[in-house]
Amino acid sequence: MTAVGIDAIEIRSGKLKLDLPGTFAPQKGDDPEKYTKGLGLTNSSFPDVYEDIVTMGANAAKRLMDRKGLVPDDIGRIDVATESAFDHSKPVSTYIAGCLEKVYDGDFVHANKGERKFACVAGTQAVDDAYNWIRAGRNRGRAALVIATDTALYARGDPGEATQGAGAVAMLIAEKPNLVELSDDQGYGSKDETDFLKPNQQFPSVDGKRSMQVYLSRMREALEDYESVAGKIELDDFAYAPFHTPFPGMVRKAALLAYRHVIRDTEYEDDLAGEIGRQPREDEYDDREAYEEAIRGYMDDLKTTEQYRTWYDDAVEPTLGLSREVGNWYTSSVHVARVSALRDALARDRDFVGETLLVASYGSGAQAEIHAETVREGWRSEVDALDIDDQLEDRYDLSWEEYEDVHDIHEYDKDLDREIEEFTAPEGEFVFTGWGRMNERKYEYVE
Amino acid sequence: MTAVGIDAIEIRSGKLKLDLPGTFAPQKGDDPEKYTKGLGLTNSSFPDVYEDIVTMGANAAKRLMDRKGLVPDDIGRIDVATESAFDHSKPVSTYIAGCLEKVYDGDFVHANKGERKFACVAGTQAVDDAYNWIRAGRNRGRAALVIATDTALYARGDPGEATQGAGAVAMLIAEKPNLVELSDDQGYGSKDETDFLKPNQQFPSVDGKRSMQVYLSRMREALEDYESVAGKIELDDFAYAPFHTPFPGMVRKAALLAYRHVIRDTEYEDDLAGEIGRQPREDEYDDREAYEEAIRGYMDDLKTTEQYRTWYDDAVEPTLGLSREVGNWYTSSVHVARVSALRDALARDRDFVGETLLVASYGSGAQAEIHAETVREGWRSEVDALDIDDQLEDRYDLSWEEYEDVHDIHEYDKDLDREIEEFTAPEGEFVFTGWGRMNERKYEYVE
Repeated sequence: MTAVGIDAIEIRSGKLKLDLPGTFAPQKGDDPEKYTKGLGLTNSSFPDVYEDIVTMGANAAKRLMDRKGLVPDDIGRIDVATESAFDHSKPVSTYIAGCLEKVYDGDFVHANKGERKFACVAGTQAVDDAYNWIRAGRNRGRAALVIATDTALYARGDPGEATQGAGAVAMLIAEKPNLVELSDDQGYGSKDETDFLKPNQQFPSVDGKRSMQVYLSRMREALEDYESVAGKIELDDFAYAPFHTPFPGMVRKAALLAYRHVIRDTEYEDDLAGEIGRQPREDEYDDREAYEEAIRGYMDDLKTTEQYRTWYDDAVEPTLGLSREVGNWYTSSVHVARVSALRDALARDRDFVGETLLVASYGSGAQAEIHAETVREGWRSEVDALDIDDQLEDRYDLSWEEYEDVHDIHEYDKDLDREIEEFTAPEGEFVFTGWGRMNERKYEYVE
Repeated sequence: MTAVGIDAIEIRSGKLKLDLPGTFAPQKGDDPEKYTKGLGLTNSSFPDVYEDIVTMGANAAKRLMDRKGLVPDDIGRIDVATESAFDHSKPVSTYIAGCLEKVYDGDFVHANKGERKFACVAGTQAVDDAYNWIRAGRNRGRAALVIATDTALYARGDPGEATQGAGAVAMLIAEKPNLVELSDDQGYGSKDETDFLKPNQQFPSVDGKRSMQVYLSRMREALEDYESVAGKIELDDFAYAPFHTPFPGMVRKAALLAYRHVIRDTEYEDDLAGEIGRQPREDEYDDREAYEEAIRGYMDDLKTTEQYRTWYDDAVEPTLGLSREVGNWYTSSVHVARVSALRDALARDRDFVGETLLVASYGSGAQAEIHAETVREGWRSEVDALDIDDQLEDRYDLSWEEYEDVHDIHEYDKDLDREIEEFTAPEGEFVFTGWGRMNERKYEYVE
């Protein structure tokens, strides 16, 4: 069976940054470590005045197409995943295709364009659809372009304000992929939840505590479902475990839970038993409360063990590198985590072909998906070609007052009483230029 | 290769109706035939106070599951297509699954839930994703539930007001389907267009004239693309041709265009040549304008020929039956057209197994998709089990003042200054009961 997977990835960050310990914390009267240690975040990316989900997605896609020498005829499908759509009918993928057609010969007339929405998990769902389309033999030799793009803003003063971010990831899903091969196995955990909503509103309503519980519960169910098809997970099977990362602190909790689940009834649990005892089993306790108390005690002990620390430092911590610098990008967050892992492998010059990643996606509302990916021979050149370090280095560092302006300009319902100038000069990129006759958003390519 | 396709369909109409010639026309001071003949519409369906896209979708899905004896474990995927979503993050499929879990033992915890948006074409895209998922061998013996659901309202006084409608179609996509088998072949015509938009607004902005041109152009491209993979279409290959039906008058135009395209360079064109001449070819004309003028003349003649009238009456007119009674249901419109065709075959007691439908979907923004479906042995009992006639018969007939109330109550941003009572009594169905703590919509099942 021909391998199908991710052939190439490009990341596009918003061109502005907000320094959380340096600018946000002092304004809020907070200890900077609340952000850097607690949430695990240093900076958030924001879109400049002329950036939005279309420009970020189109710019990521263009760099991908240029780098891979692709023309529109090579693409049979363009799916966008977003929870920041600005139209209830017309999909963002049509806007992005319209942008790309301005700079390439040919067109995407015979490509299937679409849009998926399910909080942060839709990017992975779109990858999945593209994989199935190729596996079903309907791609006519063409590849799929999957673009996850979001402007993750919260209302000013909301507890989520420190976890904002904006950026896009473009992925080429193709046969004989350079980067990673996907497999048929996947696990789902999914329930009707109200942890995070945007009911007819741009900014989310979040039940923070519930959201964390739901994230962990759906992940556990997805892991069980994955194991039911792929077999019991062995701890050493996976080089990295990229998780959906609303903020790195959330992944610290999820990783500990996943670890406890995976080592149960294995030699890893036995090895730790002398140090911290065996895991509590529910039937050993009189009631659920006592059992949960015991679990919490075991988890507190577990996270201090060298065995766990070593696994976490090797398999999870390296997946958080970019997230710490950019904040939450919603649909592309788990895909940014994957890239962080691949960059870590490159930086360590790892012998990495054939190694496996366990990828754990999540969307509020709520659904988790878990699957494995196998690293392919071309991974090194693909990862080496990324320019995300330059993008992050070049971001404009916003003052507090400038941040307030940027937030205002990207709020849909805000009637601005002032002109806000762009902070950076666009060059070689798609930009938003204003509204057309039908109130559609308009774009141009700036040389 | 195991057949994959649509195993079962259920239709759920909004429980209210607006009589266009009887109630709408007099109020507007219009000739009733403007609606019945011009648009081709007699009634529009509207949701009662306790109905919305979730209840209509869940009620359609429940009837489907009950009729087929399904339990939640039989379903591996629930995808909703809509352009009427009321949340920018949480998908409608989670609400629908939550409803169904209230009445069935078991749950959909390991089912992949999703939401697709692309104007009216997303329902077909979701069917497509489900088909690919099964073809890719990832369904673990389970079927997919695809639900297209919309409340297609326009601003009061908008030219589109007469084409409103509300309803849902639930489809079970499975191996060895009872109803129709899908194939790998499909054709797309897709361009970045601004014919119909909802930029951060509930009701559409429509460029009516442009929208019709775009519909026809994308259909032509999709037909060409389809023929490039499936071979030249022969006129007698298809028993029916269900089109996306914003209103039947639009399909009259599309059918004529499709017919002209399909008969070009065939014996059908030759047979007509004595009567109306051969089709104008662009190279025979000095400029595009003269050519288009000639095409218009040919089309005017073509539609009066007996050959065309016979084809239209047999293959297209029967697909419009339900649409005339319910209006535009956006994502489910083309699926309603398919059902109309199947009901016509049943009413005529046609020997129908192995016959083929040419299904032409369309979404503004804009994209057309064309594919073929082959009727399966179980079609008769599936179509016979539909209760849509009873539903339409039972609808409450709104007065003009009541219609105004119903429109107001389904407008998201309207602060109502009055209580509006329900017009019908819910029985054996899911109903909307109000908002929860997080501003989520809440539902119950009424016995």
